[in-house]
Amino acid sequence: MDAVIREATPTDVPQILHCIKELARFEKEPDAVTISEKELLSEGFGEDALFTCFVAERAEEIVGIALVYFRFSTWKGRTLHLEDLIVTQDQRGKGIGKALYQRVIQYAYEQGVERLEWVVLDWNQGAIDFYEKSGATLLKNWYLAQMDPNAMKTYLDRNT
Amino acid sequence: MDAVIREATPTDVPQILHCIKELARFEKEPDAVTISEKELLSEGFGEDALFTCFVAERAEEIVGIALVYFRFSTWKGRTLHLEDLIVTQDQRGKGIGKALYQRVIQYAYEQGVERLEWVVLDWNQGAIDFYEKSGATLLKNWYLAQMDPNAMKTYLDRNT
Repeated sequence: MDAVIREATPTDVPQILHCIKELARFEKEPDAVTISEKELLSEGFGEDALFTCFVAERAEEIVGIALVYFRFSTWKGRTLHLEDLIVTQDQRGKGIGKALYQRVIQYAYEQGVERLEWVVLDWNQGAIDFYEKSGATLLKNWYLAQMDPNAMKTYLDRNT
Repeated sequence: MDAVIREATPTDVPQILHCIKELARFEKEPDAVTISEKELLSEGFGEDALFTCFVAERAEEIVGIALVYFRFSTWKGRTLHLEDLIVTQDQRGKGIGKALYQRVIQYAYEQGVERLEWVVLDWNQGAIDFYEKSGATLLKNWYLAQMDPNAMKTYLDRNT
C-alpha cells in the first residue's frame, strides 16, 4: 500500500468531488449528486467544519476518501459516523480502503467517542464479513427513514 | 394539545436527562445510559453546540423531547438527523409526540436541509405507518454497523 493517508485540505476538494461523482456514476445515479465544490469547502473546512475528510493520495492523485462527522447519542454522548469510504475504480484491491478504514478507527479512538458507526447495504456480504471480522457489530432490525423538502412542505401545509 | 414546544435551555437539562433515563428503564436498559448532565450541557448549548433539543413543556414540566443534529451527505450536503423523540410515559396519547415531530420537520425545512432522517425499529409497525403516512420514505435494506472503543483498540493493536 503505497498511498499516503492524510486529512484533506481545501485544494483537494475538486478531486474529492470527482471521487464522489465517479461512485455515483458507477451506482448508476449520477444525477443524485447535487453537492458542489463550494458546499464541500464551506462545510468541511474552517472552524465550524461539519465533517472531516481523510484522503488517500498516490502519485499526487486522490485515489480514495473517507468522510466522517460527529453525531450525538442520548445514551452514549458523542459518536463518530463514517458517512462514506470510497476508493476510485482503478485503484481497488491495493489495500487503500483498508488503510482509510484503519485511519477512521484510529481517529474515532483518539477522539474518545463511545461509538463509531456507519451503514452497509444488506446484500453487500463482502463488506459485512469484513466489518464483522474487524470487530464491528451489525444491527439488522432498523429501517432508515428519510423525508425530502417536498414532503416536509406538504406535511407542514397539511398540519399548520 | 396544551403543551408548549420550544427550544431547550441549559436549565432544562436535568429534566431532559430524566426523560432519557425513563425511556431506557422502560426499554429495560437503564445501565446503557452513560451520559451525564455535564455532557448534555457542553454538547448541546453554546456556540459550538453539536445538537439542538426541542422540549414539550406542560405545567412547568418537561413531558417530551426531540433531539436533532446536522449530518452531511456526500450526495446531498447538509441533512438533519432526528436522534430521539421521547414523550414521558404518563403523557402519551395527547398529541405531544406529533407536535414535537411537526416542530422538527418545520426546523428542517427552515434550515433548508435536503433531507431529514432518522431510524425506526423494523417491528414498530405503528411508528412505521405513522412515518409513511406523514410523507417519509423507509429504506429497508441497510444494516447499522457499530464499533465500541474496546473493538477499536483491539483492531488498532492488531493492525499497527
